[in-house]
Amino acid sequence: MTAVDINCDCSESYGRWILGDDLGMMDHVTSINVATGYHGGDPSTIRRAVNGAVERGVNIGAHIAFPDLMGFGRRKMWIDPADLQDMCLYQIGALQVFVTAAGARLTHVKPHGSLYVMASDMPEYADAVAAAVAEVDATLPLLLLTTAMTEHAAKHGVTLVPESFPDLHYTPDGHLIIERIKKAWDPELVASRAVRMATEGSVVANDGETVIPTAAPTLCLHGDAPNGVEIARTTRRRLEEAGVAIRPLPEVLAA
Amino acid sequence: MTAVDINCDCSESYGRWILGDDLGMMDHVTSINVATGYHGGDPSTIRRAVNGAVERGVNIGAHIAFPDLMGFGRRKMWIDPADLQDMCLYQIGALQVFVTAAGARLTHVKPHGSLYVMASDMPEYADAVAAAVAEVDATLPLLLLTTAMTEHAAKHGVTLVPESFPDLHYTPDGHLIIERIKKAWDPELVASRAVRMATEGSVVANDGETVIPTAAPTLCLHGDAPNGVEIARTTRRRLEEAGVAIRPLPEVLAA
Amino acid sequence: MTAVDINCDCSESYGRWILGDDLGMMDHVTSINVATGYHGGDPSTIRRAVNGAVERGVNIGAHIAFPDLMGFGRRKMWIDPADLQDMCLYQIGALQVFVTAAGARLTHVKPHGSLYVMASDMPEYADAVAAAVAEVDATLPLLLLTTAMTEHAAKHGVTLVPESFPDLHYTPDGHLIIERIKKAWDPELVASRAVRMATEGSVVANDGETVIPTAAPTLCLHGDAPNGVEIARTTRRRLEEAGVAIRPLPEVLAA
Amino acid sequence: MTAVDINCDCSESYGRWILGDDLGMMDHVTSINVATGYHGGDPSTIRRAVNGAVERGVNIGAHIAFPDLMGFGRRKMWIDPADLQDMCLYQIGALQVFVTAAGARLTHVKPHGSLYVMASDMPEYADAVAAAVAEVDATLPLLLLTTAMTEHAAKHGVTLVPESFPDLHYTPDGHLIIERIKKAWDPELVASRAVRMATEGSVVANDGETVIPTAAPTLCLHGDAPNGVEIARTTRRRLEEAGVAIRPLPEVLAA
Repeated sequence: MTAVDINCDCSESYGRWILGDDLGMMDHVTSINVATGYHGGDPSTIRRAVNGAVERGVNIGAHIAFPDLMGFGRRKMWIDPADLQDMCLYQIGALQVFVTAAGARLTHVKPHGSLYVMASDMPEYADAVAAAVAEVDATLPLLLLTTAMTEHAAKHGVTLVPESFPDLHYTPDGHLIIERIKKAWDPELVASRAVRMATEGSVVANDGETVIPTAAPTLCLHGDAPNGVEIARTTRRRLEEAGVAIRPLPEVLAA
Repeated sequence: MTAVDINCDCSESYGRWILGDDLGMMDHVTSINVATGYHGGDPSTIRRAVNGAVERGVNIGAHIAFPDLMGFGRRKMWIDPADLQDMCLYQIGALQVFVTAAGARLTHVKPHGSLYVMASDMPEYADAVAAAVAEVDATLPLLLLTTAMTEHAAKHGVTLVPESFPDLHYTPDGHLIIERIKKAWDPELVASRAVRMATEGSVVANDGETVIPTAAPTLCLHGDAPNGVEIARTTRRRLEEAGVAIRPLPEVLAA
Repeated sequence: MTAVDINCDCSESYGRWILGDDLGMMDHVTSINVATGYHGGDPSTIRRAVNGAVERGVNIGAHIAFPDLMGFGRRKMWIDPADLQDMCLYQIGALQVFVTAAGARLTHVKPHGSLYVMASDMPEYADAVAAAVAEVDATLPLLLLTTAMTEHAAKHGVTLVPESFPDLHYTPDGHLIIERIKKAWDPELVASRAVRMATEGSVVANDGETVIPTAAPTLCLHGDAPNGVEIARTTRRRLEEAGVAIRPLPEVLAA
Repeated sequence: MTAVDINCDCSESYGRWILGDDLGMMDHVTSINVATGYHGGDPSTIRRAVNGAVERGVNIGAHIAFPDLMGFGRRKMWIDPADLQDMCLYQIGALQVFVTAAGARLTHVKPHGSLYVMASDMPEYADAVAAAVAEVDATLPLLLLTTAMTEHAAKHGVTLVPESFPDLHYTPDGHLIIERIKKAWDPELVASRAVRMATEGSVVANDGETVIPTAAPTLCLHGDAPNGVEIARTTRRRLEEAGVAIRPLPEVLAA
């Protein structure tokens, strides 16, 4: 039987600014990626997300980013890789202490925004991020867009895990199209894409033709869509109806 | 005939984080207070608010604040008054250039959050803010909670204008109760408070008994309430039905 | 034989801005307090300080602060104690991961600037800081100005350790006078004050008369004075000549 | 007779962190570029630099940058050009108000760090910066590395002015080599390069051979070198001894 993890980004609020319904999403996903303060996620927001996940038995990863609150971590930045590694370590540590204080363990690391895109493509950045992960715990899976940087993660003893995105469009060459302000998507459309991704390992690109391979042990859903929770609920249900088991990432990887 | 200005805070979004419906509010108010980057208001958000206001003929003031994005300018800070004056001047200048570029003129200055509360009470802060206003243009009215600091503004040639808050509770000793996350208020309740403020110059405090004097040439409404636009629409209509003219602040002051 | 620890603040540079000679200071002190990013201390600066200390066998504490780069953590801020606790935990975690990655262990926590002063005086802040320490490891000593808040630390199982400041003036009522830009002090003057503090547990206030009790297991020296390293070298030598043993804090506390 | 302006970056301190000797440099240069808060330059630092320059009759430009305190504006960032234009306008306005309050007028705009490098090369960025300048005052010269983007500035009615750098190395293809921490340079070496630049319009690249054309109406010196003031004094004297007149940029351009 096919199994996938469902992950979503959480803790992307900041002080007075609320983004997404963290607790609502946690009822439908198996993993959350907690923003660690560089693109969102003040300490109290982190605390609430972590405690909410621990109460629900949801896995918790570090959603590390470029230092760019104004640009929400979506602006490409060229940072010396050694400095980048230090920034990643800082953020992972800042989150991990909340997870530990809540009696749980960190389960994965996933870069955010442009750091995600660039680390999925650029060896220097993949190396920097993987090195930081290895400094904390090399058994933590590192989530990236594809497996292209697998050997750069492996160099540091880190396992790269690719993911797929049912609620984002792919270009014919396999890149993601990020919406500046996430719009509502039709939950059934996202769900059907998720089912295809989980069962066939592919999706049709935004040219309506090109089939993009997307086989991955985890699907990412976005909680900052206006109807993010509804999308997550529908997607999970349709996956289960299609015979796909929803399992935490470690179980999927071990299967 | 009684006349009042209606002002609201705008431009309090920041990058990915959207707060309030700036353009929606502008259809019902006569003045906006534009966040200048220290508690909210990235440059592009400022641009949109300023241009929207100029298109609608709405007056534009500088909504200056403490340097505190994470706390949304609501945390009390003790800043050397000379440094505070410099921060105020910086923010006013940063906003003014957008107003000028749009072919309009800045019309007032209103501190935000804890700077508002502290400058309404503390001579050193009132002096610092008024001195910054005077450096730009002493004819710009300075909006504060009460007239308590009038002489400190006057020392710098600046006119202090008090305001009243139909959509916030007052304590029996006249202080405002700020909601951490602004809840929806009943529009008719806000409107009836506004009418009493405009026609009788008073409001009942949150003990249900104490009458607080609130006579002021301008009423402030909050656009970050979930139903802020509806509140503004209803309040304006009820004020007009009660025979209160809604006029820009300079006209109210000149009357 | 009398023994004291000597601690100094480190890692207070930020990006292009260099403050103090971290490695120079480490040759003369037994403990460093590493700025954790809120008032200074970008991740790469933290890394260098931590690694330098580990190489030299110097103890490493977390120098947590208010979120205030522009004010260098010296501006008083009123933060909800629950939020403050979260900020402290975030910072301790962010530092701890560098210490652990370098094969060492965090040894203490010391608030910086106005957080230090306020947590030394205000029960709510002392509680918040101590609670954060306890979430990480209640055996980590919490350094504050006096023992006034001992019971608030103890409530969380945390040991409060007071310290004394040979290179700062005390007012007659026992408060410290912080210099905005740290000036050079006469090394022999600092050294003689340190010897008196270590051997008699007191210092003369800046009125030239009042004797302030300052008995404490650790002396703090400032590396951001232009001649900070020379002061540290001289002070340590004079202490040793006076028969005071310079020992890491845990040994002093255990004695 | 040949004439050049000498400009230097100022106001790059930030709160507790002091960088360079602003007032010392002003005794030897004819123009300063004042950091506007995005890479350095808190409001009080801006105030001191502006007032110092007005007292000395030194011209004042806006030294606008990417929003990146930690990276000191030296990290390349990919920002939507419309957003970048807004950021530039914000910064120019924030500075201009201090200049106006001091009774002077802004005289030029010069991007900093990676914004300087990128705007000198990339049409989208050159357009964005020039558009912001034009919104304030199209007669303000825009300083960039070369004249490559002249037509993009001209499109907005803005005059591009190239500059040369006696205290930085050039690569054989004409790029500058920025030192992470500016080292001391031999003042006579910088002076002799400046004289060659002013009189011959060229410099030898760091391969020791390639001659790079550098004809420009203004020379830039760096005040953050440990001996920046001495370099400026020597360079100015040697230029004058070589018969080069040191004049404010508008006079050089008008000649």
